[in-house]
Amino acid sequence: MKARRAAESLTVQTEIVLPNDTNVIGNLFGGRLMLWMDIVAAISAQRHCRRVVVTASVNNVSFNHPIKLGDVVTLEAKVSRAFSSSMEVYIDVYMEDHISGKKTKCNEAIYTFVAVDQLGNPIHVPELVPETEEEQKRYEGALRRRQLSLILAGKMKPGEATELKALFTAADA
Amino acid sequence: MKARRAAESLTVQTEIVLPNDTNVIGNLFGGRLMLWMDIVAAISAQRHCRRVVVTASVNNVSFNHPIKLGDVVTLEAKVSRAFSSSMEVYIDVYMEDHISGKKTKCNEAIYTFVAVDQLGNPIHVPELVPETEEEQKRYEGALRRRQLSLILAGKMKPGEATELKALFTAADA
Amino acid sequence: MKARRAAESLTVQTEIVLPNDTNVIGNLFGGRLMLWMDIVAAISAQRHCRRVVVTASVNNVSFNHPIKLGDVVTLEAKVSRAFSSSMEVYIDVYMEDHISGKKTKCNEAIYTFVAVDQLGNPIHVPELVPETEEEQKRYEGALRRRQLSLILAGKMKPGEATELKALFTAADA
Amino acid sequence: MKARRAAESLTVQTEIVLPNDTNVIGNLFGGRLMLWMDIVAAISAQRHCRRVVVTASVNNVSFNHPIKLGDVVTLEAKVSRAFSSSMEVYIDVYMEDHISGKKTKCNEAIYTFVAVDQLGNPIHVPELVPETEEEQKRYEGALRRRQLSLILAGKMKPGEATELKALFTAADA
Amino acid sequence: MKARRAAESLTVQTEIVLPNDTNVIGNLFGGRLMLWMDIVAAISAQRHCRRVVVTASVNNVSFNHPIKLGDVVTLEAKVSRAFSSSMEVYIDVYMEDHISGKKTKCNEAIYTFVAVDQLGNPIHVPELVPETEEEQKRYEGALRRRQLSLILAGKMKPGEATELKALFTAADA
Amino acid sequence: MKARRAAESLTVQTEIVLPNDTNVIGNLFGGRLMLWMDIVAAISAQRHCRRVVVTASVNNVSFNHPIKLGDVVTLEAKVSRAFSSSMEVYIDVYMEDHISGKKTKCNEAIYTFVAVDQLGNPIHVPELVPETEEEQKRYEGALRRRQLSLILAGKMKPGEATELKALFTAADA
Repeated sequence: MKARRAAESLTVQTEIVLPNDTNVIGNLFGGRLMLWMDIVAAISAQRHCRRVVVTASVNNVSFNHPIKLGDVVTLEAKVSRAFSSSMEVYIDVYMEDHISGKKTKCNEAIYTFVAVDQLGNPIHVPELVPETEEEQKRYEGALRRRQLSLILAGKMKPGEATELKALFTAADA
Repeated sequence: MKARRAAESLTVQTEIVLPNDTNVIGNLFGGRLMLWMDIVAAISAQRHCRRVVVTASVNNVSFNHPIKLGDVVTLEAKVSRAFSSSMEVYIDVYMEDHISGKKTKCNEAIYTFVAVDQLGNPIHVPELVPETEEEQKRYEGALRRRQLSLILAGKMKPGEATELKALFTAADA
Repeated sequence: MKARRAAESLTVQTEIVLPNDTNVIGNLFGGRLMLWMDIVAAISAQRHCRRVVVTASVNNVSFNHPIKLGDVVTLEAKVSRAFSSSMEVYIDVYMEDHISGKKTKCNEAIYTFVAVDQLGNPIHVPELVPETEEEQKRYEGALRRRQLSLILAGKMKPGEATELKALFTAADA
Repeated sequence: MKARRAAESLTVQTEIVLPNDTNVIGNLFGGRLMLWMDIVAAISAQRHCRRVVVTASVNNVSFNHPIKLGDVVTLEAKVSRAFSSSMEVYIDVYMEDHISGKKTKCNEAIYTFVAVDQLGNPIHVPELVPETEEEQKRYEGALRRRQLSLILAGKMKPGEATELKALFTAADA
Repeated sequence: MKARRAAESLTVQTEIVLPNDTNVIGNLFGGRLMLWMDIVAAISAQRHCRRVVVTASVNNVSFNHPIKLGDVVTLEAKVSRAFSSSMEVYIDVYMEDHISGKKTKCNEAIYTFVAVDQLGNPIHVPELVPETEEEQKRYEGALRRRQLSLILAGKMKPGEATELKALFTAADA
Repeated sequence: MKARRAAESLTVQTEIVLPNDTNVIGNLFGGRLMLWMDIVAAISAQRHCRRVVVTASVNNVSFNHPIKLGDVVTLEAKVSRAFSSSMEVYIDVYMEDHISGKKTKCNEAIYTFVAVDQLGNPIHVPELVPETEEEQKRYEGALRRRQLSLILAGKMKPGEATELKALFTAADA
């Protein structure tokens, strides 16, 4: 299977916040944004592996900036690393100021997808080739996040997570 | 502010998977489930603090069991711990077998909400009193998760995360 | 077929009133509430008979209390009586005060469902065993409502409706 | 206030059954049809009184014919009688055969609406003038249904319901 | 295939503008109105040919009058001319004043549909018989619009469009 | 007001066709695609003028290629020309082959928007600077389309439409 460049999986989504997307104080619901993220990230993973993909997990997502009714939201998703049958996807979310046209980054999230066949069984996916500096950095972080998620799921012992362990040992010194 | 029992925040949601909630192979979209989780968890947090709440973050969510078109899904949310102005909420998701009536747990997720005033500024919330054994266990885990999320956000140094550090040191021995 | 207890069919739904659910003066549409009632009642009937169910009829529903945008609405459905292939389901609807946390009952409705096979033909359902005082009372009322609905549909003569006739004769005395 | 003819309130709605409107065996959900009925009936009542209206109650609705995915459904609503501040609306529902173009009546429902001012208080509505034979028949039945609904709500004693009582006495003879 | 009268294809739709249908200044989105137009026009075309139809093109649509939240919108669609396998449908859109009950025409649009078999191949449709003066006028205009659309699609040379050419020549004189 | 480059208004939308977006033979509804086009084009116009915009008209849209359930659809909108208070926006629609990853153009549409102030009155917009060859070509065509639409609306006499007249005269020769 031929490896693919990260850039080939770039997927862009532009949404306007409509009344039904907002809560009582007029902000975009966190859950609606997660739904949009899931769709754009699933298309990105599908573009990388060209197979059906299903959401496997969502790593820490933070909501730091309230997004208001009528705001334009842009979501950009790109595969950050491929493992045997899974792909980690990074989603960057931007809000856009109507007057200045300035884009502000307001969210960042990491979703993991698994490629499956028609019976829902996992299948191999191509490797990912990071190119830019940011792609490289996210590619490396993906291994650390994978170890952490295996530990939290009870599928790896903390002592085996060499990448993570180094983080705590270094912090100790 | 009077502390409240975990049981007071219990919120139950029952959904049927409709065609529009499914992907190409007939499974519930991960993003739709996250939207449902966000709504039930927000109501739970709101029941604890009786103020407007906004989603602050989502910790690791895993999707282990495919949920099919027509399945009945039950979501149960309960506040697991309250910090000064934030609340961690645990969501347990169950699928129900139509023939046997047996409920199977298929997902577990942890969302964090912040209570805000009309201007969107954080405000204090009551403390949470865990009662059952499971409530107690989740209450304790909440501190560990909070440290981890502060580290990942760059707001705490790994060496200061005493709860987490113990985990790796113990694993070393 | 083994009879089942009313409590086994209890189904709970929690909803927040979103902008699109409201009319021009900001109240929840009656039709939206009836849609929610139908879904929660259908799940309840399905839990009793563990077969596919279809809505057969809706008895008198009253809308006495306006429900506002942002309100939390809880629907509780429970089978009140089973006939040969049909089930009467009672739905109690509560609104929740955000500040006091007090639940107020705002609606009550009765839906009837029929259990069907894959071709849509009616099939037998288990009997229902009422236990609490309220379950007992609703179980008895179900027969009266069934007679009334058969009369209104022209399938029973008023003189044969012994339960209903007693009501008017007693009132006469 | 000038009385208005029944024909002036006629409101027609045409819908196609989409995938999300159907249950597991491919039939239109009862709840979705009740939502459509509520909207078309509310517009009809609003056309009669030219004020904001809210759903007050729903009388017996029966679902006798399954409606399938892709079917065209036509709803026709017309006010059948006006009381001081409320209006009874009759809704006739038709399915349409794609090949023969023949319309078959598949449902009939009766909704009651109340006209309200901006504060939600009931206000007077014009009287209704029935013209056709069917309008006349429904106009007369409306009084009987109103008595029945007042009895069921505990607001009228069965002995006072002269219209209804006659029905049972006649049946006795 | 027997020709059909224009009146047989008349299809009426009544909608209330809900919050989610509006933009930031509270007006109905143009795109939402086009979606409603497409559905009502597709049913109209289907009533003419009694086959599955697919949207082929949309001619000039203008949006001259803002439609507000809560307004009642009535759409009336009628086939204006049938070609071998396609049908041109005229849609008239009216807004309704709540107080006076007066209907104002606010939009007019022309959609073209093609009748297809199960494989999506075009199939013949019955001819259309215009009766009223307006039906006659729209029937004649349909030929001119068809020529224009063939020119714009590069499938007809401007010089062959006798109907259109006359328009410009006349204007010249 | 400073002129803006066409490229600055580029807006990209990626959608997956869900069950509810399809008709009886499993193809994307024309009306749903027009709704998506309207939203992406409105954001594009808004990016050019940084004011609220409302849909003014839609020029000929053709639907040549059926789009199926599960297909990924990409919409790209860019302002093609600005007049005093209106903007013409070109929308290119692509379908994506899951296996080869090849993008095929399947639709093209032209929408016109007007920039308005809070009262809905038209306001001036910046000029548009076309750069690429395609942007240049679409910029020039916009004038012709505007004349045609003014003629069709009865606001310009065919003889005054110099651009259009040339088209027919040339064809004659």
